[in-house]
Amino acid sequence: MDKLAKSPANYVPLTPLTFIKRASKIYSDRTSVIYAGVSFTWRQTYHRCCRLAYALRSCLNVVKNDVVSVLAPNVPALYEMHFAVPMAGAVLNAINTRLDAKNIATILRHSEAKVLFIDYQYVPLASEALRLLLTGSNDGNSAQYAMPLVIVIDDVDKPTGVRLGSLEYEQLILHGDPRYPGEDVEDEWDAIALNYTSGTTSEPKGVVYSHRGAFLSTMSLIQGWEMGTEAVYLWSLPMFHCNGWTFTWGVAARGGTNVCIRNTTAKEMYKSMSQHKVTHMCCAPIVFNILLEDKPHERYKMESKVNILTGGAPPPAALLEKMENLGFHITHAYGLTEATGPALVCEWQTKWNQLPKHRQANLKARQGVGILTLADVDVKNKKTMESVPHDGVTMGEIVLRGSSIMKGYLKDEKETAKAFHKGWFLTGDVGVIHPDGYLEIKDRSKDVIISGGENISSVELESILFKHPNILEAAVVAMPHPKWGESPCAFVALKTSGTTTESEILDYCRRKMSKFMVPKKVEIVKELPKTGTGKVQKVELRKIAKSLQISNNTSPNYQQTRYQQDEVHDQDKLHAISRL
Amino acid sequence: MDKLAKSPANYVPLTPLTFIKRASKIYSDRTSVIYAGVSFTWRQTYHRCCRLAYALRSCLNVVKNDVVSVLAPNVPALYEMHFAVPMAGAVLNAINTRLDAKNIATILRHSEAKVLFIDYQYVPLASEALRLLLTGSNDGNSAQYAMPLVIVIDDVDKPTGVRLGSLEYEQLILHGDPRYPGEDVEDEWDAIALNYTSGTTSEPKGVVYSHRGAFLSTMSLIQGWEMGTEAVYLWSLPMFHCNGWTFTWGVAARGGTNVCIRNTTAKEMYKSMSQHKVTHMCCAPIVFNILLEDKPHERYKMESKVNILTGGAPPPAALLEKMENLGFHITHAYGLTEATGPALVCEWQTKWNQLPKHRQANLKARQGVGILTLADVDVKNKKTMESVPHDGVTMGEIVLRGSSIMKGYLKDEKETAKAFHKGWFLTGDVGVIHPDGYLEIKDRSKDVIISGGENISSVELESILFKHPNILEAAVVAMPHPKWGESPCAFVALKTSGTTTESEILDYCRRKMSKFMVPKKVEIVKELPKTGTGKVQKVELRKIAKSLQISNNTSPNYQQTRYQQDEVHDQDKLHAISRL
Repeated sequence: MDKLAKSPANYVPLTPLTFIKRASKIYSDRTSVIYAGVSFTWRQTYHRCCRLAYALRSCLNVVKNDVVSVLAPNVPALYEMHFAVPMAGAVLNAINTRLDAKNIATILRHSEAKVLFIDYQYVPLASEALRLLLTGSNDGNSAQYAMPLVIVIDDVDKPTGVRLGSLEYEQLILHGDPRYPGEDVEDEWDAIALNYTSGTTSEPKGVVYSHRGAFLSTMSLIQGWEMGTEAVYLWSLPMFHCNGWTFTWGVAARGGTNVCIRNTTAKEMYKSMSQHKVTHMCCAPIVFNILLEDKPHERYKMESKVNILTGGAPPPAALLEKMENLGFHITHAYGLTEATGPALVCEWQTKWNQLPKHRQANLKARQGVGILTLADVDVKNKKTMESVPHDGVTMGEIVLRGSSIMKGYLKDEKETAKAFHKGWFLTGDVGVIHPDGYLEIKDRSKDVIISGGENISSVELESILFKHPNILEAAVVAMPHPKWGESPCAFVALKTSGTTTESEILDYCRRKMSKFMVPKKVEIVKELPKTGTGKVQKVELRKIAKSLQISNNTSPNYQQTRYQQDEVHDQDKLHAISRL
Repeated sequence: MDKLAKSPANYVPLTPLTFIKRASKIYSDRTSVIYAGVSFTWRQTYHRCCRLAYALRSCLNVVKNDVVSVLAPNVPALYEMHFAVPMAGAVLNAINTRLDAKNIATILRHSEAKVLFIDYQYVPLASEALRLLLTGSNDGNSAQYAMPLVIVIDDVDKPTGVRLGSLEYEQLILHGDPRYPGEDVEDEWDAIALNYTSGTTSEPKGVVYSHRGAFLSTMSLIQGWEMGTEAVYLWSLPMFHCNGWTFTWGVAARGGTNVCIRNTTAKEMYKSMSQHKVTHMCCAPIVFNILLEDKPHERYKMESKVNILTGGAPPPAALLEKMENLGFHITHAYGLTEATGPALVCEWQTKWNQLPKHRQANLKARQGVGILTLADVDVKNKKTMESVPHDGVTMGEIVLRGSSIMKGYLKDEKETAKAFHKGWFLTGDVGVIHPDGYLEIKDRSKDVIISGGENISSVELESILFKHPNILEAAVVAMPHPKWGESPCAFVALKTSGTTTESEILDYCRRKMSKFMVPKKVEIVKELPKTGTGKVQKVELRKIAKSLQISNNTSPNYQQTRYQQDEVHDQDKLHAISRL
């Protein structure tokens, strides 16, 4: 047995790059990418990737392991770069477009990006980031760092002429060679992508994916979601989130069609669904609100069910039910950047179809079961690393192991070592395992509220608050309490249609939850403070909660704590996702 | 990038063993295996596997890389051994039950099997094989070889008491420990299974699979066939054929139900489909005849469509159409033992639904496109190793590369080296690539008939002959010809219902094919000669054809050339598969 050696015929590095080569051969004339008035076939997309990869190598001197960064919305160029950059042997770094110039400069410096692609819309933001990088106003280290080459991605449908320097994406494509096959992947452990976490509590960390991990995650997700061939995938989820939860690569694997949109408004999404007969889309549950609160004239007729994979936050049962009634079929997933996107999928069981709707919604809100390429998922007592019983009650830290987990954090041995513990990746999330083996998140470790020795899950409280007919957003944090140590403090934003008082909400809580769980304080606010990536800033809420405890009479000016207040607009709602 | 090292959390060997551990956790109460009056849940099946693995290690002293052979029909024990044997660190060798004692003895000797499990039904055959092994009557080498430990698998539903020695499967299970977690897979390149090719032209070769290859093939096939969760899989395909085309592992991956049957008669199959609401089954096209020619009282009502994955021989268009009319949905795959079963799947395209039925059937009869875990599939000129144009006409050898290709042939460096050529695995099959990228087999290399410099595909001729209303089986081989070098000679077996003469068939051929392709000779026979695995013995037919050429007036007594004539019965039809 042992004498049989690996050969190039029977041991080929696993990489998502095989998906596009395959698509170019067998789905050659199928539509690969649609964006506004432009569309491509798989043959064309592949040739554009070959050209770009060639141009990166020959015109821009990109070599193996170089980082190629990009700041762009879901346009065809960003899709193509998911293949072209690794085909050039380089590592794709898709930057979150909601970040401010300072954060972007930090990422460019830390990743040592050799090239930076900028969508025309983000030229002002990128210019400011480059200025910070150049002047070193950030940390004074600019002298040691070479500036990235800048290439503007003009709009491929309606070119604007906006430039920053002389290079433009389509010109680069023209310089390339469509016959260039790309560099061989020498080792499937080689890096393919670099994604920065948003870092609510610390500096952003650079999560590195291997070709192997990306390939396996992609396989698992098209599997776990049962995404068939000829899927029409709407890009409502930003591709910069874990490479679009791997569906950048996955749509190529299935020979599907990518429907790219620049803005994720209700109108744009409904229009795309109707026009292109969308079958699949991913989004955070907060997008459900956008889709449900659309204006009647913005809604187009959906001809068939649209499958939604949602994650990032447990979808409130009430929202799930409303969405299903509208004709969406929702699957809930859980994951995190470090796990190459979704790591668990709430796999539906036929027998659940017979349950009442609200019970179904509760089951669907659970995080579910590990995807097929994860070697194992467990919930463990963090101190003893012993597995919790499958009782749906005992909480522990959710831990994962498998080849779809990141390689580690770039240039951060300390954080990498902290993340990997005794053969497991620690998610930092707290959950339980139900008797049927399905996992349910109860909280982020740091978001657990310990009141009088009882663990209170802020997620659980938020989920109950969400069910209140007038509540749009809710977040619960710990507030210092002289007697109980900590007690829950709730922040809620109301729907435009409804009015409610703090005492009415407290009454509601008393009816719906155990006494010890009832928030000691409910603050009604206009909108919850969020990070540039749209995550609720619990750190800020905790500060406010602390001040509330000291002086209950002063209403906090929480608006001033807002991060990037000027950038908040509808689209931010898209990204209010806790982990993905 | 390069500094990020592998750790047990993010680099876990790929193995199908993760599928059953996962199934035991999340599908624990679902039915895993049904056989006659017996059924198990996934928790039970897993625990039985743990017990067996433990017993193999502790009672039978099995150690890493030991070969554990088994001679059994599709009973639960054979299914369980697909997990239990590798859990013990050993290599599963499921032997084709249609082989004769001499061949079985050869396999036991060559594989150095340490343990041999024998289904009670095969005790006489196995006894004879063991006798040959012991007396060395085969090649006189017995002295160098230790006899395998023998364990009888009695019928789990209705125990018969048949024994060969003292050990019995269920007793072994009882001796095991359900908490034994199995040996760790240290390296995904380690062997998991050993499957012998049937060797129509040479000695059987031992094809070795790695855990990695088995994992990846399984992932691809449940994907390529779009097998959803909760599938009910009927074991009409023997598990000893490439480990049931990987569905032994695949059904566990999807949390499906295995319906095991001992006999693949029409009655048994229809009854299982109806009783257990079967959703999926695999078989060779020859099984279509069994299902179509059933007696009316044997047919049970099928409540919903049954998906069939077929392969081994291109399914004749006429048969496909009849089967679809009966309520079967057929997907065609192509593969071979060396590729861990199916390597290409004829992925259906929605637009084809609008074509006329016969055109659809022709498209479906093509071998299709590479599965997702194959790095590449191509058709190449064997001399130059250049790819043929995608014109549907130019023939070349079908070549594959990827991690689902076998490790190699056990203890056969020469054949292994021959199979791997310039980074490709040579299938020995001849095909074309159509403009849409779909591949179609034209012939086995050695089955191409070269007549007057023209390549004639015997498969193509057979396919035309199959369409004749009175023809049940057809095989075409080369016959020496004084003028053309070679010319086609057809052997046909007629349906019980029909009568036809040679000249009528020749007339039919003249109407349906190019002149140079028309067989120079048509022999009507009662049944085609087949190997123990049911493959048509073209070697034998060639001998007959040669004699026909010399003396056209002597009708050959082809029955005497038959291999294992006494073993031929209905079930053999199941295995008349050219490659899988």
